[in-house]
Amino acid sequence: MDSLYLEDLTVGQRFVSATHTVDAAEIQRFAAEYDPQPFHMDDEAARNTLFGGLAASGWHTAGMMMRLIVNGGLPIAGGIIGTGGELLWTKPVRPGDTLRVECEILEITPSRSKRDRGTVVVRCITFNQRGEMVQSFTPKLVVPRRPA
Amino acid sequence: MDSLYLEDLTVGQRFVSATHTVDAAEIQRFAAEYDPQPFHMDDEAARNTLFGGLAASGWHTAGMMMRLIVNGGLPIAGGIIGTGGELLWTKPVRPGDTLRVECEILEITPSRSKRDRGTVVVRCITFNQRGEMVQSFTPKLVVPRRPA
Repeated sequence: MDSLYLEDLTVGQRFVSATHTVDAAEIQRFAAEYDPQPFHMDDEAARNTLFGGLAASGWHTAGMMMRLIVNGGLPIAGGIIGTGGELLWTKPVRPGDTLRVECEILEITPSRSKRDRGTVVVRCITFNQRGEMVQSFTPKLVVPRRPA
Repeated sequence: MDSLYLEDLTVGQRFVSATHTVDAAEIQRFAAEYDPQPFHMDDEAARNTLFGGLAASGWHTAGMMMRLIVNGGLPIAGGIIGTGGELLWTKPVRPGDTLRVECEILEITPSRSKRDRGTVVVRCITFNQRGEMVQSFTPKLVVPRRPA
């Protein structure tokens, strides 16, 4: 798919990513580096916690979402540059889960001060293989206008 | 510092983490795996983008924040378990930046249905070595009550 500029986007437009299956080793490797808590590193230790078994760090889920949207899941010209947004983790991500991301354009606002760009609010929902939402992220993105 | 239960927290209480200095190799390594965009991987390619030079993925900044608060920056009993919150990236994180996280307790709400826990809203600001805010994250955490 070609990269999309601000003019190419419409409210309600949807995009679906490829999928990624996460295994225990990837969950543990991410956690060891960025979220070293027992429930993200050791299945046995996770049993007696709120998670009830090994679960991916929410930041790992966010990273997997980002990789899926960067690799074709949201083909914005110039790349995915976000200033932030609301992030929600709604279900644990488990070893063996297959994730996909669906994004929907919610708002498009041309910049009044910078004529070469605008901001776009997009809601990106990450689903597992059972169609359950595991994460929602609704960032504001900086999107370029098509060069004249 | 001892781990803190719901009863030990007060609104306005503040916590300061240790620091972490990030280098270009760590920025590039994270990006290669989770946010493979030119401005997070190659200084030269980043020059002509909004970032004007190599900058860490926002998700990498979030991961570094998480590691700092897990490793003593926010000593909550049972660990840091968040259901999500507002995430904002306010300045690029550059190679050589030294990050620290300051968290402030904003709200404490004992659960009405589950007597062994409550929810706590905390704002965690990540600063660089010049005292500039690079990220703000305001999650809702699940915090256990002290066992009877």
